[in-house]
Amino acid sequence: MLEQLFSSLEKYYDEMVSIRRYLHQHPELSFKEEKTALYIKNYYENLGIDVRANVGGNGVVATIKGQKPGKTVALRADFDALPIQDEKDVPYKSLVPGVMHACGHDGHTATLLVLAKALHEMKNDLHGTYVMIHQHAEEYAPGGAISMIEDGCLDGVDVIFGTHLWASEPVGKIQYRVGPIMAAADRFEITIQGKGGHGAQPHRTKDAIVTASSLVGQLQQIVSRKVNPIDSAVVTVGSFVAENAFNVIADKAKLTGTVRTFNEEVRSSIEQEIERIVKGICYTSDSSYSYEFERGYPAVVNHEEETDYLVNCARNIAEVTAVEETEPQMGGEDFAYYLQHVKGSFFFTGAKPDGNENYPHHHPMFDIDEKSMLIAAKTLGCAALNVHNQENALETESAQV
Amino acid sequence: MLEQLFSSLEKYYDEMVSIRRYLHQHPELSFKEEKTALYIKNYYENLGIDVRANVGGNGVVATIKGQKPGKTVALRADFDALPIQDEKDVPYKSLVPGVMHACGHDGHTATLLVLAKALHEMKNDLHGTYVMIHQHAEEYAPGGAISMIEDGCLDGVDVIFGTHLWASEPVGKIQYRVGPIMAAADRFEITIQGKGGHGAQPHRTKDAIVTASSLVGQLQQIVSRKVNPIDSAVVTVGSFVAENAFNVIADKAKLTGTVRTFNEEVRSSIEQEIERIVKGICYTSDSSYSYEFERGYPAVVNHEEETDYLVNCARNIAEVTAVEETEPQMGGEDFAYYLQHVKGSFFFTGAKPDGNENYPHHHPMFDIDEKSMLIAAKTLGCAALNVHNQENALETESAQV
Amino acid sequence: MLEQLFSSLEKYYDEMVSIRRYLHQHPELSFKEEKTALYIKNYYENLGIDVRANVGGNGVVATIKGQKPGKTVALRADFDALPIQDEKDVPYKSLVPGVMHACGHDGHTATLLVLAKALHEMKNDLHGTYVMIHQHAEEYAPGGAISMIEDGCLDGVDVIFGTHLWASEPVGKIQYRVGPIMAAADRFEITIQGKGGHGAQPHRTKDAIVTASSLVGQLQQIVSRKVNPIDSAVVTVGSFVAENAFNVIADKAKLTGTVRTFNEEVRSSIEQEIERIVKGICYTSDSSYSYEFERGYPAVVNHEEETDYLVNCARNIAEVTAVEETEPQMGGEDFAYYLQHVKGSFFFTGAKPDGNENYPHHHPMFDIDEKSMLIAAKTLGCAALNVHNQENALETESAQV
Amino acid sequence: MLEQLFSSLEKYYDEMVSIRRYLHQHPELSFKEEKTALYIKNYYENLGIDVRANVGGNGVVATIKGQKPGKTVALRADFDALPIQDEKDVPYKSLVPGVMHACGHDGHTATLLVLAKALHEMKNDLHGTYVMIHQHAEEYAPGGAISMIEDGCLDGVDVIFGTHLWASEPVGKIQYRVGPIMAAADRFEITIQGKGGHGAQPHRTKDAIVTASSLVGQLQQIVSRKVNPIDSAVVTVGSFVAENAFNVIADKAKLTGTVRTFNEEVRSSIEQEIERIVKGICYTSDSSYSYEFERGYPAVVNHEEETDYLVNCARNIAEVTAVEETEPQMGGEDFAYYLQHVKGSFFFTGAKPDGNENYPHHHPMFDIDEKSMLIAAKTLGCAALNVHNQENALETESAQV
Repeated sequence: MLEQLFSSLEKYYDEMVSIRRYLHQHPELSFKEEKTALYIKNYYENLGIDVRANVGGNGVVATIKGQKPGKTVALRADFDALPIQDEKDVPYKSLVPGVMHACGHDGHTATLLVLAKALHEMKNDLHGTYVMIHQHAEEYAPGGAISMIEDGCLDGVDVIFGTHLWASEPVGKIQYRVGPIMAAADRFEITIQGKGGHGAQPHRTKDAIVTASSLVGQLQQIVSRKVNPIDSAVVTVGSFVAENAFNVIADKAKLTGTVRTFNEEVRSSIEQEIERIVKGICYTSDSSYSYEFERGYPAVVNHEEETDYLVNCARNIAEVTAVEETEPQMGGEDFAYYLQHVKGSFFFTGAKPDGNENYPHHHPMFDIDEKSMLIAAKTLGCAALNVHNQENALETESAQV
Repeated sequence: MLEQLFSSLEKYYDEMVSIRRYLHQHPELSFKEEKTALYIKNYYENLGIDVRANVGGNGVVATIKGQKPGKTVALRADFDALPIQDEKDVPYKSLVPGVMHACGHDGHTATLLVLAKALHEMKNDLHGTYVMIHQHAEEYAPGGAISMIEDGCLDGVDVIFGTHLWASEPVGKIQYRVGPIMAAADRFEITIQGKGGHGAQPHRTKDAIVTASSLVGQLQQIVSRKVNPIDSAVVTVGSFVAENAFNVIADKAKLTGTVRTFNEEVRSSIEQEIERIVKGICYTSDSSYSYEFERGYPAVVNHEEETDYLVNCARNIAEVTAVEETEPQMGGEDFAYYLQHVKGSFFFTGAKPDGNENYPHHHPMFDIDEKSMLIAAKTLGCAALNVHNQENALETESAQV
Repeated sequence: MLEQLFSSLEKYYDEMVSIRRYLHQHPELSFKEEKTALYIKNYYENLGIDVRANVGGNGVVATIKGQKPGKTVALRADFDALPIQDEKDVPYKSLVPGVMHACGHDGHTATLLVLAKALHEMKNDLHGTYVMIHQHAEEYAPGGAISMIEDGCLDGVDVIFGTHLWASEPVGKIQYRVGPIMAAADRFEITIQGKGGHGAQPHRTKDAIVTASSLVGQLQQIVSRKVNPIDSAVVTVGSFVAENAFNVIADKAKLTGTVRTFNEEVRSSIEQEIERIVKGICYTSDSSYSYEFERGYPAVVNHEEETDYLVNCARNIAEVTAVEETEPQMGGEDFAYYLQHVKGSFFFTGAKPDGNENYPHHHPMFDIDEKSMLIAAKTLGCAALNVHNQENALETESAQV
Repeated sequence: MLEQLFSSLEKYYDEMVSIRRYLHQHPELSFKEEKTALYIKNYYENLGIDVRANVGGNGVVATIKGQKPGKTVALRADFDALPIQDEKDVPYKSLVPGVMHACGHDGHTATLLVLAKALHEMKNDLHGTYVMIHQHAEEYAPGGAISMIEDGCLDGVDVIFGTHLWASEPVGKIQYRVGPIMAAADRFEITIQGKGGHGAQPHRTKDAIVTASSLVGQLQQIVSRKVNPIDSAVVTVGSFVAENAFNVIADKAKLTGTVRTFNEEVRSSIEQEIERIVKGICYTSDSSYSYEFERGYPAVVNHEEETDYLVNCARNIAEVTAVEETEPQMGGEDFAYYLQHVKGSFFFTGAKPDGNENYPHHHPMFDIDEKSMLIAAKTLGCAALNVHNQENALETESAQV
C-alpha cells in the first residue's frame, strides 16, 4: 500500500511543482490569505473531497475517510507568506510587490494537496480517517493554529504530523527529535526608572545605568543557578538603551530581551524569576520598574512513539539519504499548539537548493529545491499509514519474544 | 590706602555698570573676541596704562607699576561669551543673535577695567606691580589661559587672584576655599566590541551587553576601593547604548561618562584604573575595546596664604555680609592653569539678581546683580594690596609674642 | 535460547544471593581488594572458565567463547567497597570494621559471576565471545578501569554493557539513556592573592574579597552565555573562604568548586573559560591567582544502538515492570572509560529494599533488594545475546520494506 | 603670663617624666584603673586642688578657678592601658605582666597633672576656670567619656581641648584639623541564609555564595553612588566565610565588615543603605538574612575657632617646628563625645622616639619621646589661656580696620 502511495506521489510530482509555483507567484500575508484559502478549497471540491473553509479564520480542513476502521490522523500545512520583496530571478517569482513565500509554506501546501489527492484515490483500502489541516497565519502571532483548534479542526483526531521544508539542510535529509524540537520564544521588556541628575552628584540620584547593569549581571543567575541543568534555557538581554550626555546621570534604562525554553514549567518559572530579580535589584537602589513578558509560541514537543513512526518511514524511503536526530531549534512554530492537544510529531525535510548559494529562511533570495516536496509527501504519507500498521507491527513484535 | 581704593571704586561704579552693559550688548564667542579685545586695549591706552594685545590669541594684558618696591600681583578676568540666544527683556540685551554673556564674563571685565583705573590713580603710593590679565576663551577647551601663559602673561608674577560672579548666591556673600575649589572634569568613552548573534545562541557570541554591564559594576570599585577615602572623586557612566532587536545578542556597547577629581594624582590614577578594568573585563569575555580619556580643565586648587588674604579682606568690606567656606564645586575653570604656575586664589562673588527668579549660569534668562561687581572689585583690590601689607602684618605679629 | 538463560538464572538465584552476602561480609577497600579478586578467580577456575587475574592491578577477567561465530561482548562488574561502618542489623552485615559494601558492588559481582556460569553452560549454542570484566577500585580516582584497559581487558571487545543496582528506584524498574547518563565531575580550586591592609584604607590594598566576589558573579556567565543551551553544565563554587577580622581588608580568598558536564568539549572549554575569567578579573584589581582544575571521571556516554538492545530486552523480561528513560545523573562512574574505547551502554537496575526506609548509596544503613540481581543478570545476559540476534533482526527488518 | 606658664612647665618637666614613668610601670586595664585614679586624686589633694573622684566610674575631675572672670575651659587626658605584654628593655618597663601603656595615656596623664600644677600656681592672675578631666577607659567601647559626661564633668564647661601623643610623627610637630579629625568606626555583620544542596543541582538550592558575592559587589555602590563625593566614607567587607566541601552548594555565608565616616548623617545613611542592599539582593534569590550594625565611637569633629586658638599657640611655641593640617585619621577616639556637647579641638602632638625604630601604637615595643609631653603641655596650656586672650585680640583686630 505504501508502494502504491509512493508511486502515486511520484506520478503527481509535476502537479505538486506547478501548484507550488502558482502559490509562489500569488503570496498573501498572514490573516489575509483569502485567495489562497479559496484555491485550496476549490482543489478539494474539484476532487470531491469533503472540505470545510473559514475554519478559525482563513483555515481550510479537508477530510478523507478510509473504508477500513482505524484512527484519525491529521496532517498540517501552513499557507501564509511574508512581507518581503522577492528578489529572485526565476519564472515563478512573486507577482505581489513586497510579499513573498520566503519560508516555504507554498511548498507545504502543494505537498499536502497532492498527498491528499493520492490518499483519496486509495480510499477504499485505507484504514482510518485523514484530516488535512491547511492553516493560515503561522508567521504572525498569535497564529492561526489556536483559532482553528477552537473551531474544531482537531476534533476526533488521534495523531498529527507536520513538516517544515528546511533550506539549510540538503535534499534527502530528514531531521527528527523526540521531545522538544523547537523552542518557546518569548519577549520581555524592562524599564528601570531611577532619578537622573548631574554626573558629579551621584548621591542626589538613583543611577539607572548602574542599576540596570547590576540587573543584567544578576539575570545570568537564572540559567546558571535557577534552571535545572538538564533543561535548556536562554535568557538574553538584546538591547540596553540609556542614551544621555556623558556628564549626566541616567534617570532611565530600557532593556529588551528574549527567553527560550522547551518546557512550560521552566518557561513560567523564568518569567517569574526575572521579575523577582528586577524587583530585588530595584529595591537596592530605591528605583522603580516596569516589566512585561510577552509569550510567543510555546515549544514544539514531539511524542516518542509518533516520532518513531516517522523515523521508521524515513529510513525506508529511497530518496532519503540521511535520517538524523536534530538538536532542538530555537525558532518558534505554532504547530506547538496541536501537540498540546493530540499526539504527533513535527520534522524537518531538507530542501537546500542545489548548485547555488544557500539563502536562509526569510531572505529575499530564499528558495527551495522542489524535490524536497516529494520526500515530505512520502514521509508524511507513510507516517500517516504507519499509525495503523505499527499497531499491528507492535503486537507481532511483542508476540515474538 | 584701602579706604582710598574703595572710595575710588564707589565713585566709578556707574562706569563699571555702563562698561558691563556695553559688553553685554556686544558679546563675542570664544576665540572670536576681536572687538572686545580692542575695546579693552583702547580703554587702557586712553588711560595711559601700559597694555599688550594679542597675548596668546585675543588676550590683553595691562601693567601698572607702583612707585614703591613690592611683589607682582596678577588679577584675571575672562571676556568671552556663549552661543546662547539672549531672552531677557532688558535695555542692555545682547544685540548679537544667538550670542550672549550668559556667564557674567562681561561683569568680570568691567570690574577689572575699573579696578585698574583706580589702582593706576594710586600709582605713586602703591607697592609692587599689578598685572591685569584679560583672558579670552574660557568657555571652550582648551581655553585661553594656556596660550596666554605661554605668551608670558605670568612672567614675573608672584601671586594671582580671580573671581567668578556667582548667580546662585546672594549679593554680599563671598565664598572661598583653601585647596580644590573647582574640580577637574574629564570625559571618557568606552566601546566594547564583542560578537553579535542570535539571541538563542549565546555560546556563539561574545555578549557585549553582558560585558559592558559587568564593566559598569566593576567601575564602581574605583571610587569605593581605589581612591583614598579622603580624596573626592566621581566616576559616572552617563550613557550606555547597545540598541538592537530584542532577540539578538549585541555585538557592541558604547559607554560615555565623566570623571571628577580635585587632585592630579587621583585624576591620573583613575584614568589608568578605568583602562585596567576595561581590559580585564574584556579579557573575561574575549572581547576587544576602545578607550578614550579626554582631559578637560584641571582642578582649581587655591593656596592657603593667598586665600587668607582674600578672606581677611572680605571680612572687612562693608558690603560683604557673609564670608563662607564653600564645598568644592564640580564645574571646570581654566583659572586652574594659572595656579599651576603661581600662588593665588579664586573665589565666588555672590551676584544673584534681586527680586526675581534665579536663572542658572548658561541659561537664556541669565543675569547678574551689578552691585556684585563693586564687591568683586573691592575684594580683588584689597587682596592685591594685602599681598604687601600682610608681609608687614606678619612680621609685626611674630614680633609681638 | 533467551528462555534457557533466564531459567538458568532463576535456578541459580540462591547462589547469587549467597555470593553477594559472603562478599558483603568481607568487603575490601579500593586498590586493596586482593581477597575478593582471589575469590572471583577461584570461582571461575572451579567452573573451568578461562580467567586472568591481576589485570591492571586487582582486576580479574574471565572469557567464555561460544561455539558459534560472532562478536565479542564484555560485561563489567566492579567489586571494591567503601570506608564506611556498616550499621545495618542483618545476618550478612560486614565483618570488617569501618569497611562496607555501601554501593552495591557486592551485588554487581554476584550478578556477573552467576551470569557467567549460566552462559558457560550454554557455550555450545552461543554466538561470539563473552568477556567478564571484574573491575577493582571504582570508588576511588583514578579508578581501576584505566589500568585494566591498558592491560588489555578490552582487546578484541566489540560491545560492553554494565549496570548499577540503584537503591533509589523500585525493583522492577530499568532506567536507560542514549547519550550521557552520568556526568563528568571535576573539581577546581582558585586562590585570589590580593594585598591586605587596614579596613579604612582600601586604596592601599587589593581587596581579595571584592575581587573574588566579582569572580563568582562573572563565573555565572559560563553557563548562561558560554555553553550551548542544548548542553547541560554546572559550575558551582561550593566554598568561599576569606576569614579575617572585620576591620581589615582581606589579602587572600580561596574558592573551591565543581564542574559537571556530559561532553568532553564542553568540559574542556569550561576548564579554559574559568581560567580566562579568573585571569581577567584578577587583572582588574591587579591581583594574582592560582588555579587548579582536577578532572574526575568523564561522562558515561551510552551509544544508541547498544542502548536499544538493552531496552528491547528489558521490555520483555517478566520481572521488569517499567523501562524508562532517565535524566542524566550527576554522579561519576569510571565505566565512562570503557565507552571511550568500545560501543556499549550502562543502565540502572532498580534495587530499593522493600518495606523499609530507603537509605542512599554511601549511607551506613545502605542495602539493596537482592531480587534486583536477577533482573540485572537477565537484562545484561539478554543484551549480550541480543548483540548477535539484533544483527539478524535488522537484516530481516530491512528486507521487509 | 604665657611666658610664666611656659617657664613653669619647663621647670617641672622632670616631674612630668617621673610621673609618666611611674604610671608606665603600673598600667591598668580599661574600667579597672582604680589605683591610677587614686594616684591622680592624691596628686591633686596634695596640691590643695579641688578634686572629685569616681566620676562616671574611675574618672577623676579637678577644678582650678582663676581669680579673674572668664570662661570655663576643660582639658582632658585618658589614663587606661592595654592588654599587651611590654617587650621594651627600659628601666621604666611595665611591672604588670600582660598589661602595658602602649598608647601613651601615661604621658597624657603626666602632662595634664603637671600643667594643672602650673596653672594652679598662677591662679591669682588667671581668667576663668580650668577643669582637668582625667578619663578612664578610652580603649574599650563604650569608653569612659559618656559616663563622665553623664556624671557632670562638662557641666559649665565652654570649651575643651585634648591631644594625643602621636608616635608616628616627630617631636616638634603639631597636627590639627578643623572638622573631622578622627573617623567614626562601626562594625557590621551580615549572614545570608540560602538553601544548600548538591553542587550539581543548583535549581534546588538558593546559593548563598552567589548571593553574598552579588551583595559584596552591590555594596561598592554605597561609596561610589550614594555618598556625597565631598564626604569621606569607607565600607569594607573584611571577612567572607562560607566554608564547605567543593561539591556542595552553600546554604549560608557570613560577612563582617567596617564602616568609617566623619559625619553622622552619612553614617546613618550608610547603615540604612547596607540593609537596603542586603534586603534587595536577598530578595533576588529568595534568601533571608540577618544584619547587625554596631556603632563604635563617633567621629571627632573639631570646631574652627577653637582649632585656630590651638594653631596660633602652636606656631608660637619655641619647641614646635611644624604646625600642619593633618588628613583625617580613620581610628576612633571617644573624645568625640565631648565635642558633641561643647566646642573644642583635639590635636596630635608628635612623639616619635629619637634615634631608633618607630613602633606603632598598640605594639609591644611602643614608646614615646618624653619631650613631647612638654610640647603638649605648652600647647594645651596656651590654648586654654587663649580662650580668654583671643576674645580681646579679636576685638582689637576688628577695631583696627
